[in-house]
Amino acid sequence: MWNNTQVTNMLSIQYPIIQAGMAGGVTSPELVAAVSNAGALGSIGAGYMTMESLENTIQTVKTLTTNPFSVNIFVPEQTAVTEEEIASANELLNPIRKQLGMDPTYKRPMINDELFHKQIDLIIQHRVPICSFTFGIPPKNEIARLKEKGIILIGTATSVNEALLNEKAGMDMIVAQGSEAGGHRGSFATAFDLAMIGTMALVPQIVDAVSIPVIAAGGIMDGRGVLASLILGAQAVQMGTAFVTCIESGAHPLHKQAILEGTEDQTVVTATFSGKPARGMNNKFIQMLQDQQHNILPYPYQNVLTQDIRKEAGKQNRPEFLALWSGQHPRSSRQIHAAELIMGLAAQVRRLAETFS
Amino acid sequence: MWNNTQVTNMLSIQYPIIQAGMAGGVTSPELVAAVSNAGALGSIGAGYMTMESLENTIQTVKTLTTNPFSVNIFVPEQTAVTEEEIASANELLNPIRKQLGMDPTYKRPMINDELFHKQIDLIIQHRVPICSFTFGIPPKNEIARLKEKGIILIGTATSVNEALLNEKAGMDMIVAQGSEAGGHRGSFATAFDLAMIGTMALVPQIVDAVSIPVIAAGGIMDGRGVLASLILGAQAVQMGTAFVTCIESGAHPLHKQAILEGTEDQTVVTATFSGKPARGMNNKFIQMLQDQQHNILPYPYQNVLTQDIRKEAGKQNRPEFLALWSGQHPRSSRQIHAAELIMGLAAQVRRLAETFS
Repeated sequence: MWNNTQVTNMLSIQYPIIQAGMAGGVTSPELVAAVSNAGALGSIGAGYMTMESLENTIQTVKTLTTNPFSVNIFVPEQTAVTEEEIASANELLNPIRKQLGMDPTYKRPMINDELFHKQIDLIIQHRVPICSFTFGIPPKNEIARLKEKGIILIGTATSVNEALLNEKAGMDMIVAQGSEAGGHRGSFATAFDLAMIGTMALVPQIVDAVSIPVIAAGGIMDGRGVLASLILGAQAVQMGTAFVTCIESGAHPLHKQAILEGTEDQTVVTATFSGKPARGMNNKFIQMLQDQQHNILPYPYQNVLTQDIRKEAGKQNRPEFLALWSGQHPRSSRQIHAAELIMGLAAQVRRLAETFS
Repeated sequence: MWNNTQVTNMLSIQYPIIQAGMAGGVTSPELVAAVSNAGALGSIGAGYMTMESLENTIQTVKTLTTNPFSVNIFVPEQTAVTEEEIASANELLNPIRKQLGMDPTYKRPMINDELFHKQIDLIIQHRVPICSFTFGIPPKNEIARLKEKGIILIGTATSVNEALLNEKAGMDMIVAQGSEAGGHRGSFATAFDLAMIGTMALVPQIVDAVSIPVIAAGGIMDGRGVLASLILGAQAVQMGTAFVTCIESGAHPLHKQAILEGTEDQTVVTATFSGKPARGMNNKFIQMLQDQQHNILPYPYQNVLTQDIRKEAGKQNRPEFLALWSGQHPRSSRQIHAAELIMGLAAQVRRLAETFS
């Protein structure tokens, strides 16, 4: 019965497992399609993707699978930065650029204010069946536009209050993102530091507060975590880190290696890469910037400023300057095919459920 | 089969549920005995207890139950403070003393260096069958002395490394304390901020690393949490917050009320009360001191310094100056008898296990 939930029925998937829509190139079309073909839900992490890139990715995924998949997008917020703040932030980044042999820069980061709306245009145009959101609740008119087309909407919450706001806004289901989760914190209405609630505590409290299905996320890496989440009242799980190290993942090989060799006590939450708190392996980039919070621009400005650095660090194979996103459970990561991961999860869940009956 | 584990067999208890040995008067003899009488393991939180108080408590528990119970003690560390540091710390606390109508003081806190060893004397003398430790590994000779008497030893770990150190030192089982847990962080070998690992991630990683039984702690408040923990590989759970609000608990009524009315986004981790990080409900005391970390004495000095304040705040019913320890899952707390809590947990676990079979 574990794979016959409201979530599996609504999403038309076999297993209640969602591959998180991680931004930054991890969710290659090969990964998304492999996950969906294996009976779970693959997700394109479109957070920072240009229109062209998102359109290409959607089209390629469609050539690789006929199963449902989703696109995750970042809800924008209004932030403004002064020329002075931009100069200070660049000043802080220039020593890192220097270490990578890059020219110092003081340039103003370019932000495409229309990206979110245009991404939704593409999702509708290409009939993507499921759309998930990070960083908040989308505007009413966008929710209405997507729902009109029958697209299923998944919100993200890091507190009970955020879950209630998602439900009220009309989301069909909610990801309850525990503090263990790798990558960006989805917090938007609860202060980041107060919204660091562990999955074991967060999931049941959200389940008790809302009527829509809840998807557990944070620290789930194997069948034990999947079944434990369902026991806590979730109807499905969302897993990120476990998919980063999959063979089909587009993550940098050194990012995969950092997770495969990583331990639970190596991750930190940092806003240094993007301007928003996110969990990843501690490295030199973070150490150089972590105490300089006042010189870090808000999202999305900081993210655009550090893009060239991360790109160059990747080219030069310098993990100390890469964003090595990881949750707090890297010890169970494996370098395997996504289908093998999903089949293994299913088998382990069945075995465990029998043991405890 | 859920209540026939190595832990239940070794501890001679019916249910794999341990009431945490919370210090500060929460673990009244009535609570400890009620828990043990109901088939779980009651624990005396002897952390700060004087010899007289611990002896009285052990003796009273023994008149109330013939079932096994445990005593939790704090492993001491060598810390030194200067007169200047003591003056600064008192300077910071005197405005709070003033608000409570107390005289300002600059007194040196008195520390009993022998307390730990004398507590062990008492445990041996009164044949307490189980002893658990917080804040580290006890000295070899003390471990040997307890083991010689057949006393079962339980250590606390907040990381895989700390679990391995506990196993190596000869502990019979380990509490894996996730970041959700209320009260003091047990961290001793991993930096506090890197050891904030959620229960969902911490338990399976520790289970995979050690050969001795693991007890899950942090965010567990009901049968969902108990069964989820067992699925993750733990053989038992330790619960604190759920027992604080029990009718038999010795917690201040305003402490109970703060948890009963509390939400998951209200707790913070603070060293302001004792000198060691601990999770509790945010209040005025914490807010007044949180940004003054350099004027807070190390444990146990800060704890002794703030004792009179907490005592007086309790008398005056001023929760804003009390240590309102709580985990991140207060929404599931209830004011019931300990036996009702334990019977309810057992029934819910059986129900859930059937559902998922």
